[in-house]
Order: sequence, then structure tokens, then C-alpha cells
Amino acid sequence: MSTDKKQLKIGVFLAGTGHHVASWRHPDAQADGSINLDYFKRLAQTAERGKLDMLFLADSLSISPDSHPNVLARFEPFTLLGALSQATSKIGLAATASTTYSEPFHVARQFASLDHLSGGRAAWNIVTSSIESTALNFSGEQHLEHSLRYQRAEEFVEVVRGLWDSWDDDALIRDKADGIYFAPDKLHELNHKGDYFSVRGPLNVPRSPQGHPVLIQAGSSDSGQNLAARTADLIFTTQNHLKDSQAFYQSVKQKAVSFGRKPGDVSIMPGIVPFIGDTVQEAQAKFKELQELIIPSVGLKILSSYMGGLDLTQFPLDGPLPDLDIEVNAVKSRFQLIKDLAKRENFTILELSRYIAGSRGHNIFVGTAEQLADHFIRWVEEGACDGFNLMPPLLPEGLDLFVDRVVPILQERGVFRKEYEGSTLREHLGLQRPASRYAK
Amino acid sequence: MSTDKKQLKIGVFLAGTGHHVASWRHPDAQADGSINLDYFKRLAQTAERGKLDMLFLADSLSISPDSHPNVLARFEPFTLLGALSQATSKIGLAATASTTYSEPFHVARQFASLDHLSGGRAAWNIVTSSIESTALNFSGEQHLEHSLRYQRAEEFVEVVRGLWDSWDDDALIRDKADGIYFAPDKLHELNHKGDYFSVRGPLNVPRSPQGHPVLIQAGSSDSGQNLAARTADLIFTTQNHLKDSQAFYQSVKQKAVSFGRKPGDVSIMPGIVPFIGDTVQEAQAKFKELQELIIPSVGLKILSSYMGGLDLTQFPLDGPLPDLDIEVNAVKSRFQLIKDLAKRENFTILELSRYIAGSRGHNIFVGTAEQLADHFIRWVEEGACDGFNLMPPLLPEGLDLFVDRVVPILQERGVFRKEYEGSTLREHLGLQRPASRYAK
Repeated sequence: MSTDKKQLKIGVFLAGTGHHVASWRHPDAQADGSINLDYFKRLAQTAERGKLDMLFLADSLSISPDSHPNVLARFEPFTLLGALSQATSKIGLAATASTTYSEPFHVARQFASLDHLSGGRAAWNIVTSSIESTALNFSGEQHLEHSLRYQRAEEFVEVVRGLWDSWDDDALIRDKADGIYFAPDKLHELNHKGDYFSVRGPLNVPRSPQGHPVLIQAGSSDSGQNLAARTADLIFTTQNHLKDSQAFYQSVKQKAVSFGRKPGDVSIMPGIVPFIGDTVQEAQAKFKELQELIIPSVGLKILSSYMGGLDLTQFPLDGPLPDLDIEVNAVKSRFQLIKDLAKRENFTILELSRYIAGSRGHNIFVGTAEQLADHFIRWVEEGACDGFNLMPPLLPEGLDLFVDRVVPILQERGVFRKEYEGSTLREHLGLQRPASRYAK
Repeated sequence: MSTDKKQLKIGVFLAGTGHHVASWRHPDAQADGSINLDYFKRLAQTAERGKLDMLFLADSLSISPDSHPNVLARFEPFTLLGALSQATSKIGLAATASTTYSEPFHVARQFASLDHLSGGRAAWNIVTSSIESTALNFSGEQHLEHSLRYQRAEEFVEVVRGLWDSWDDDALIRDKADGIYFAPDKLHELNHKGDYFSVRGPLNVPRSPQGHPVLIQAGSSDSGQNLAARTADLIFTTQNHLKDSQAFYQSVKQKAVSFGRKPGDVSIMPGIVPFIGDTVQEAQAKFKELQELIIPSVGLKILSSYMGGLDLTQFPLDGPLPDLDIEVNAVKSRFQLIKDLAKRENFTILELSRYIAGSRGHNIFVGTAEQLADHFIRWVEEGACDGFNLMPPLLPEGLDLFVDRVVPILQERGVFRKEYEGSTLREHLGLQRPASRYAK
């Protein structure tokens, strides 16, 4: 590309009917979207038409009757991405997998296999599973305390990366005449023995097109930031304000450098929930339409779930959030973000619950396509991020609008590709293909 | 169908370059077949053109430098079947998953998701993982003794079936106007507490098109037969002789009845490795061609692996197999089958190793398409099985020949479908869609 402008990285987080809690109630919503393959294929193909870097799937391993419709009944990510790999040819495919309730051998294998099937488009969103009830679906093993989950996660990722290097890139010779299928000195046992895992290897999948599938991390706590700065290629984060995001950006890049990496080795992509209209008024009307579809009891339950299960009905709902300081084994960084938000916006609890339920703490943007493009460019130019993880409030509309209205503006301004230059996700993101740990 | 002839059930076991150990060395072999998606798509589409009931993928969770090329470097089954579900529309998709090294919640979810993605074509081949070294890839947990593996397997399957019933078929209402996504009394927690697992549920996948994906069992030991007779819809088995297979057939069907099932609820499909020629001589030449590509040291290692790792080089290789009776924590039923075979055929150890390496203990058939069709029909008519699991020695040739030469004869004789009548695997197999355990 003949421009020297910094290129934006853009992913889309596909979540059933959309990221707004009431999206499924909207007349235009595909109410069964979370378990409808044709619908997912259409979304994936739209994102690829818009030349986005990747699509992203969240995951969870337990539900309750209070879970969101997008979460209650949906596809398992690897089977779904296996299918979507055949409906697309360029866009990256990111799946979430937990380091707390799985085994490194299984996870290494699933991502390596997906990377082969998709021609080098797989990415792993590393999560530690913050929902305590998940343990109840996995033979009641004690849910690990926050810092222990991250210790386990660090070791888990290390094992997975080791397994991905089991085969040298040129190990498989397949010499029919001499009967030599592979070079024995190019197949490696890992022989990992650590605090949480002991894994001999080797993996039964050859080294994949990307060498290592792309690593994504989404925790914003100190432990999460450390894990990300040490190992992740991409960070998904919740950032509502430019200055906060700049500080986070600086902090993570500095940590990365302290771990011996280059600042460009890790990219930061905040989530954003854009309501896009031809005018600001139209965008505001779209936001209001969805907000009014939120059932108050649902909003309160969601807010509570973001605050470690705190019972909010004990406080006057038309009053402010009391200044709480509760120790919970939940996502700590989110708890603080929500408290800060409530204070800054002077929300009542009910207003806060609607706001949180509508955005899930992420940055809500309401405006025109032009304004959203300006916003994207400003945040990247001012060192607040390297791009965005798009969280359309209503699907497919929000993705269609982004691709048809916003992407052309970004392309016009020379900050986003008009065609995919490469074919792997690493190539889209400008990341090197990592050498094997056994390379000489 | 207007015939009253018993219809054959036919699956194809897809294994890289084919089931013959030296298949990868054959000039016509696609040597990288085990990790080549276009190749798998072609095979799956050929099997579907032949109206076969299903394709089947084996699996393993550990390799060593001595592993077979088809096993060393291959796709993970769920990602692969996710992709193949999009390249086919009718054929059943069977994956192997271990009850020893996975969790019921993950397995229930993967198969339910695949069943949704494929429109009701998923089947689970239940295995207990007989290879002891697998434990070394899963943090060194003690490899369970044979009977304990089956106890765990029985409970594992029970939990998975319970999770598949989490949602009643009509639980998801998605009433936008009233804001009711599902009927709370139609979502069920399993609350299983057993010796090996405690799993609360519910599953985060709706009840799938088949209700329960089809269950396959492949163990032929007593414990394996009991598990199969109690829970399986299909049994894959190793049977070399009509009378043995008739006895096995009777035994399993009687066991099924003793567990309160109907004899037709469980179908028996022996593996068969057919060398097909225009003449018997041509078929024999094909067999000989592949046998001669076997490297002797490879043949001996494979035979040893079927005999609990017994070192065969301690005996004269040109002499007979000594009468051994060794207690090993391996696949017991196979050990006995091999001993019986060696005695019956008066094989030297080297001849036995070539024979076993070439067939892996399965029934080798050498003849014309007409003769193979006769063989299939005879075994079914004489109560030795309900159909076959085809194990082509060389792919794609063996599958192409079967579909183009053998299937038309079976169709002509009124024992095999000319078109798929239904769209789910259960419909192909003539199996009922099971009612939920919570159905009133």
C-alpha cells in the first residue's frame, strides 16, 4: 500500500442477534440467530466483503435461566468456525477457549487444525472463565481464585505454544520410494512438567500455516495485562474514554517491552458499540428504540452479574450507586470501571442498569458513519489503540451499515485496506510468522 | 421403498491414504491426504454420491515416531467435520471422542453443535482410549484400568445423553412482543452426581435435529459389548468369519433385549477391507502390490502394538507365534483374535505381521465387485451383521470403485437405497428420534 498512514485493525464480534441486550426483540432481528448457520454465514461473508481483519466468537461453559438469549442456545465455536471456514476465504476466525476448563493438548490441536482448514486464519481468544458456576459443569472442581487462574493460564499458553512447534515446518518428507514419511530429528517431544500440567507431546497436527495461530487476550486486570503483554498478539479491551485508553495503551506497550517484545508485537483493540444513522438524530432514535426494549428486571440482573452478583434491589433504584468496596472473585477490573462510570455520568441505579445492559460496559457510540470514521482515526492517531473490535448492537443491520457506509470512508482516507493483501490473519495484521522454538 | 428385502447399512471409515499400512507409498496415493481438506471433501462427496449412510473418522490423542502416517499428522475431528458438513448435505458424519480424556460437557456440546450445523447428521463413536501413553499428554493422570475405563464410559455417556435433553424441543419460544425467549419449565438442569462426574447443566445448545446424535461403540470385549448393548445405536466390530460374526450378532442382540431394548435398536457393522478388481486375479495383484510395500520392521511394530507392546523380535520371525497368555492393560479382545488367526492360518510371525499390518485385524476381502456384493448380502441374510463399515485399503481408489461398481449391484438387487429417503442419519439408519427424558 502506497500510503504511510497507520492502518486500522478491525474485527467484528459476532453475537447472535447483536450486542444490545434487547436486540433479539427488535423487529429486524433474526431471533434464532445464535443457532442459525445460514445467518452466521451471511454475517461472515458481509464482514469479509468489508475486508475486516477477523470475526470473533465469545464463549461460555455454563448458563442459567437468567443468561442472555445469545448465550443460552448457540453453536460450539470450533464446529461453527470449521463450517464458516468454508463459507469464507480471507477473513480471520477467532474462537474463545478457556484455560481453566480444558486441556492444553485439546486446545492446541483444535486451533492448529482450524488453522490448517482455513489456510492460516485461526486465532485463540484466551480466557480464564470468570463465571464461578462453570465449575459445576466440570465435576465441581473448585473454581480457581483469580490470580491462580492466571498462573494456570500462563502455563497453559506456554504448553500450547510448545505443542504447536512439535513438527518443524519441513519435517514431513513423504518419500514414497524410500519409505520415509518424516525426518525423525524434526519431530519434537515437548516433555513439559510444570505446576499445573505435564504434557509429553508431540502434537498430532503438523505446524500450521501461521506457525502459531494468533493469540488474543481480553482481561484488563493486572494479571490479564501481564499475560497479554507477555504472550498476546492482540488485546481486546473495554475503554470508554480516550485518555483512559491512551494510558492503557502506554502501560501495555511498556509491559511488552519489559518482556523483551517490540511495542508493535501487541495490538490493542477496544470494543465499540456503534449506533449509526444518516443523521445524529436517526442514530439516537435507533439507540433509544433498543433501550426501550430492555426489560428492567433483566437490566438489573445483568448489572448485578457485572458486580459479582451483588443484589441491587436492596438499594433505591432511583438513587445513585452507593460507594461499595466488595471483595469478589469476579472480574475485578470491570467492577471498578462500572463504579467510575456511574459516578461520572451521575446515573441512578436503574439508569446505570439500562446503560450497562445496553452496552455491557463497552463504549457506546451514537452518530453518523462519517463521525464514526473520524472517531476511529482519532483514537488511532492519538495513540489510544491500534483499531477496534466492532460490537454491532443489532445484527445484521449494524454490520451491514458499517461495511457499506463506514469502511468506504476509512478506505478513502487511506487508513484501511481496499483488498486483502495476504491470505493469513497474521498477514492481515502485519504480524511475523513465528519461528519454531527448535529452529536453528 | 417397495422391497421387503432387508436394507444394508454402509459406512466408510476415512483414514488418510487408506487402511493399508503401506497405502501412502502407493503411486496413486495422496501422500498428504490426512491433512488435506480438498482431498477429504472429495472423499466425502464420493461417499455421498454412493448414498452411503455415513463417513467415519477415528481419532487418537497421542503419537510416537512409530505411529502410522495417517495418525501422525491429521485434522482434529470436530473442526474437520464442521468443514465437511458444508461440502455435503445428506451423509452422516461420525467422529470419535474419548470418554477417558475429555469432559461430558464438552463432548455433549460438540456433537449437539455438529448435529445442528449438519442438519441432523452427527454420530459419536464412543472410545475409552486404549493407548496408555495418552495419559502422558494429559498431565500424567494414571491410565485407567480396562474395566474402570468402561465404568467411567458408561457414566460419561449417561451424562452426555442427559445434557442433550437440557432443552425440550419446543422450549425456545422467542416471543419478541412479550419479551419471553424461552419457557422456563422446558429448560432442565441435569444435576448429575456420580462416581466419576458431577455435572449440573443445562447444556447451552438446544435439543438437536436428531434429539440425540447417533451413538456408535467399537469395543468387542465383554465390557465393550455391555456398553454397546445398553446404549449404542451402531456397533463397529472386527469379524473375520461368518460363524463368529453370527455368534457375536446373537450375543449383542440378546444383551440389548436384556437391557430392555429391541434387537433392531442396535445395528452391527463389521469392518471390511476390500480389494476390488475386474477379475479375482486383478484384485489379488492389487493386494500383493500393497503387501510388498510394507517395510518388515513397520509390520512387526504394528503387530506388537496390537499385542500390548510385546517384543516379537525375541522369537524366531520365520517360526509360529508361541502360545502366549500375557495380562496386559490393552485391548484384550483383539489380543485373543490375533492369536486365533495365527493358529488358524498357520502364519509365521513375519507373515502374521504383514497380514495384521495390512488389515489391522479386520476382514480382508479380495475379489470382484460382484463377489463383494454377494458377500455383503450373504452376511446380512444369514444374520451375521446389519451392514458393513468399509475400510478401503487405498484411497481414493477403493472408495471410487466401491461407489461406482459395488453400490449399483446392491441397488439392483434391492438391498441398498437409490436415493436418500430422509435427511438425518437416524432416518438413513431407520432409527427413531428419541424422546426427551423429560417428555410427558
